[in-house]
Amino acid sequence: MSSSKTVRKLQVVSPVPADIDIANSVEPLHITEIAQELNLSPNHYDLYGKYKAKVLLSVVDELEGSGDGYYVVVGGITPTPLGEGKSTTTVGICQALGAFLDKKVVTCIRQPSQGPTFGIKGGAAGGGYSQVIPMDEFNLHLTGDIHAITAANNLLAAAIDTRIFHESTQSDKGLLNRLCPPNKEGKRSFSDIMFRRLKKLGISKTKPEDLTSQEVKKFARLDIDPDSITWRRVMDINDRFLRKITIGQGPEEKGMVRETAFDISVASEIMAVLALTTSLADMRERLGNMVIGNSKSGEPITADDLGVGGALTVLMKDAINPTLMQTLEGTPVLVHAGPFANIAHGNSSIVADKIAVKLVGPGGFVVTEAGFGADIGTEKFMNIKCRYSGLTPQCAVIVATIRALKMHGGGPEVVAGKPLDRTYITENVGLVEAGCVNLARHVSNTKAYGVNVVVAVNMFATDSEAELNAVRNAALAAGAFDAVICTHHAHGGKGAVDLGIAVQKACENVTQPLKFLYPLDISIKEKIEAIAKSYGASGVEYSDQAEKQIEMYSKQGFSTLPICMAKTQYSFSHIPSEKGAPSGFVLPIRDVRASIGAGFIFPLVGAMSTMPGLPTRPCFYDIDIDTTTGRVIGLS
Amino acid sequence: MSSSKTVRKLQVVSPVPADIDIANSVEPLHITEIAQELNLSPNHYDLYGKYKAKVLLSVVDELEGSGDGYYVVVGGITPTPLGEGKSTTTVGICQALGAFLDKKVVTCIRQPSQGPTFGIKGGAAGGGYSQVIPMDEFNLHLTGDIHAITAANNLLAAAIDTRIFHESTQSDKGLLNRLCPPNKEGKRSFSDIMFRRLKKLGISKTKPEDLTSQEVKKFARLDIDPDSITWRRVMDINDRFLRKITIGQGPEEKGMVRETAFDISVASEIMAVLALTTSLADMRERLGNMVIGNSKSGEPITADDLGVGGALTVLMKDAINPTLMQTLEGTPVLVHAGPFANIAHGNSSIVADKIAVKLVGPGGFVVTEAGFGADIGTEKFMNIKCRYSGLTPQCAVIVATIRALKMHGGGPEVVAGKPLDRTYITENVGLVEAGCVNLARHVSNTKAYGVNVVVAVNMFATDSEAELNAVRNAALAAGAFDAVICTHHAHGGKGAVDLGIAVQKACENVTQPLKFLYPLDISIKEKIEAIAKSYGASGVEYSDQAEKQIEMYSKQGFSTLPICMAKTQYSFSHIPSEKGAPSGFVLPIRDVRASIGAGFIFPLVGAMSTMPGLPTRPCFYDIDIDTTTGRVIGLS
Repeated sequence: MSSSKTVRKLQVVSPVPADIDIANSVEPLHITEIAQELNLSPNHYDLYGKYKAKVLLSVVDELEGSGDGYYVVVGGITPTPLGEGKSTTTVGICQALGAFLDKKVVTCIRQPSQGPTFGIKGGAAGGGYSQVIPMDEFNLHLTGDIHAITAANNLLAAAIDTRIFHESTQSDKGLLNRLCPPNKEGKRSFSDIMFRRLKKLGISKTKPEDLTSQEVKKFARLDIDPDSITWRRVMDINDRFLRKITIGQGPEEKGMVRETAFDISVASEIMAVLALTTSLADMRERLGNMVIGNSKSGEPITADDLGVGGALTVLMKDAINPTLMQTLEGTPVLVHAGPFANIAHGNSSIVADKIAVKLVGPGGFVVTEAGFGADIGTEKFMNIKCRYSGLTPQCAVIVATIRALKMHGGGPEVVAGKPLDRTYITENVGLVEAGCVNLARHVSNTKAYGVNVVVAVNMFATDSEAELNAVRNAALAAGAFDAVICTHHAHGGKGAVDLGIAVQKACENVTQPLKFLYPLDISIKEKIEAIAKSYGASGVEYSDQAEKQIEMYSKQGFSTLPICMAKTQYSFSHIPSEKGAPSGFVLPIRDVRASIGAGFIFPLVGAMSTMPGLPTRPCFYDIDIDTTTGRVIGLS
Repeated sequence: MSSSKTVRKLQVVSPVPADIDIANSVEPLHITEIAQELNLSPNHYDLYGKYKAKVLLSVVDELEGSGDGYYVVVGGITPTPLGEGKSTTTVGICQALGAFLDKKVVTCIRQPSQGPTFGIKGGAAGGGYSQVIPMDEFNLHLTGDIHAITAANNLLAAAIDTRIFHESTQSDKGLLNRLCPPNKEGKRSFSDIMFRRLKKLGISKTKPEDLTSQEVKKFARLDIDPDSITWRRVMDINDRFLRKITIGQGPEEKGMVRETAFDISVASEIMAVLALTTSLADMRERLGNMVIGNSKSGEPITADDLGVGGALTVLMKDAINPTLMQTLEGTPVLVHAGPFANIAHGNSSIVADKIAVKLVGPGGFVVTEAGFGADIGTEKFMNIKCRYSGLTPQCAVIVATIRALKMHGGGPEVVAGKPLDRTYITENVGLVEAGCVNLARHVSNTKAYGVNVVVAVNMFATDSEAELNAVRNAALAAGAFDAVICTHHAHGGKGAVDLGIAVQKACENVTQPLKFLYPLDISIKEKIEAIAKSYGASGVEYSDQAEKQIEMYSKQGFSTLPICMAKTQYSFSHIPSEKGAPSGFVLPIRDVRASIGAGFIFPLVGAMSTMPGLPTRPCFYDIDIDTTTGRVIGLS
């Protein structure tokens, strides 16, 4: 088995050192070695330095006839604010499968947002002895995909305001003449992208001079309603002062001021497009179809109406190729896309997974992570991501910790930055058992998709044998295929060998086809209600605004899109403090929005922050460079 | 000679096709081939795909003992709004030297801003048969340097507003405690970057608990005066609606609103730092020293005071390495940095030039371009860039066109986008001769630096022999070393062979040492006046605001910095319509600002736009991707 060549033996130290120290203690393999193990030839990828490469999407076409590997999604129980180690477990399973169980394996994970790296959070490349390396490159810039998203998002934003501005001072005819300037011979023509708008308007004429004055008006005047604009600018920085701003206050903008906001870049719809697209041609269509607001008469206005869908695709043409990296044990990782898990679907890209299942081939494994708890992440993985990709998972892992289960059983509040209550570091089997109602619901919900569910208990040094047994029993009772204790944080892949074996068996023994939670051809409300039911809700309540939006999207023809719930990750319900497995509550839908290009409607259950801030002492105080070695220091 | 291996034979077509068609007609060499020709080994560079590589700055250290090649700067006469082909000539000379004269050569040019590519301007990779390829990669993203600048610039911006916000709600002691949180053992300590501020404040204590309450206040409370903040946010997009904005209007920001603005990213001081830095350690210091405004008591507040200088350097650590590309004829190009030529110094990076002179070695040539006319670009090249780099040019090229000379001789106004007046396409030797006063002043000004001046007449098909002769005669009379007609736009390097030979002779026959226009140790006003005199001004007039700023910078200890005039490129004077060689005017200084980290003071002679806008029909209407081939179309 060729994988034995690149596997790197980890020298494990106890107690586990800081993440950055572990990451820096290992010299990564040249990425061409990782690529070779996947049978990628140099024309299949572009190098970005020594430790990163972009795998070209064309690989999928080349391998079209070959079989797929197994496809595994990693979700979690409802987490504490500290996180339960879902990324770490995703990496750990792969280190076990690749470095200890001699399997072809690819880890598919999200690219983290750069902004929070300098704020409170620190990096996001797994942890302990289960990490993606080099850690600094993973957390900063990577291969520029998020920068490309920022550029594309903001080009569209500039196009919107500038168009409104130019329309405000020009006649219909003047607009048409500027949009279709004469060539050297004095002839005016439509550019290719204009035919998209003409087609949408039902105009089949091919020459500007043939349009009637009514048609000129319809074509050239988008007549965007400023109050309807949902497209915001973005920046990959935690900049709270951009949460609400007024633009256009310069004298040259002639008083055309407008209130708007910046989101962090990963909240851009373009990130969701990148995650959900299936090909370059498909991305071109999705980007062009993004709706930025309505005309004053209520028609949705798209990026292609603004003439910019092609340019957006050009800006995103390299970003569509996933980035190949490696784990601490030299197994391959594809890092690609990182959409929000509330206002978007929180899963890494379809194209990375499509490439990966071909690269590992039959008998190999692709392991991907779904953001937040399984109620959100795995649900969206199945009903949105797999629906668009056509890929079928065989196994879903649900990561649990004793700590989180105790919280669900009634333990005191867990607050990030504050010391853990004693409850969480001393044995209390009763609390764990009580908390397993949360795990049980995640197991049964996930099992309903037709996959085998493996529960992974991410073990901490303070967990007792009796507590761990309680989880195992509860998981099996809830219908899990298996439940395994794992220590990959402390031991790397070796600590997840049992989990790897369980995942393998789960994949080999799947007996049912993939079943979605809801069909697409029912109404928006029926879809929302199906998802709410899976949360334990007895019903759904819509605000007037939500009703209005649902009516509008239905009228605009968008009701067949899947639903992407923007809900807290800290409870099955909409109330973060409701732990365990709440039921009988009525889920309130405050508003309903849509990412038409990406391809989903997102109901808002509560307020979602899309622009983080910086604390008094941000992480950046510790971050610097050793100017002698060029090494990054202080990144956590 | 090894260069003959990679030289690519151009198939020249007449009339000259569109730039993008020429660029696409040539299959670029793999960039490793270009690197090999420069004797770069694979550990000297990082690949970014097949046609770009970042050359690592460590090359300079490795080659420290070896000799330098000749160093040539390309400036121009005062241009028309159409541009006179300075970039094209820079590339053309190199194609001649490398592909026809068998010399080792490196072209060092600026990276263009991405924003304007989608606005009016189109790309900036030279033109005709003298271009840098691949054109789309040159114009979009490149290797992410401008994205890194945007990220670093905006992290600093977020740090400023957030700091003011947190200071407004916390006591001195509370601030200190948050800035120096206790570790696991309960001990508080200063992070490394805090010692920079402590040192600046003259506090030599090493433990937070030892500070007196007065010292706590001085250390922890930056007390930034919001009205003094000169640091703005940036975006590499033509977004005119961000020219003046109000931030902080969200309810969580508690009414701390402030008027500010976005500039286009290349206007960031960080771009100027990148262009002027000489090493990683030097960049760390310059970034940390950037002044963002003053405290309420008038002390300059730096990025290091905010604790963010290290993080900025980490964000810029890859950007410091120049990007290797190639010309249409396979000669090497280093693309690096692209600061504004008015509010900054408009030259590509020092580190690229330093690497290049070593790579070509004795007898080889490094040709770099200086933005705008020679009054601005070459002046700043000499007095700012060469002063910081320590590199000595032997030859300065001045690019002239018959068109521009006719304008200086009294021809009608030249307006971009409008058809050229007949004057410019029919013979008029008298106008050309009259216009040569402009050329003559540029020649004598440039010659004063101690370099040999070669005038390159960038020939158009409509230029007559008599007109061209008139320019040659005038140039020689003004003291030029040589004056050469060239046709590289139509013929590639072959059209610039005579120019290449002239440049070679100029370099080999330099007789004087480099002389700066002014010493650094005179006052700010004396330096401004020395430059104004070179423009032909009889004096300088300062606004009250300018006087105030000069006094402040002098008091703050910044008066020994070089001066970077922010003046129109369209005249020697401050009035764009004053063509030829105006004299006797009084140059008005409206305001004086500073880029302390980059290392210059910039007086404003007129209003400089730092955020372009989009027209009614931006270039992006034509830009799209061929989703079958992945090729970019419509880029111009």
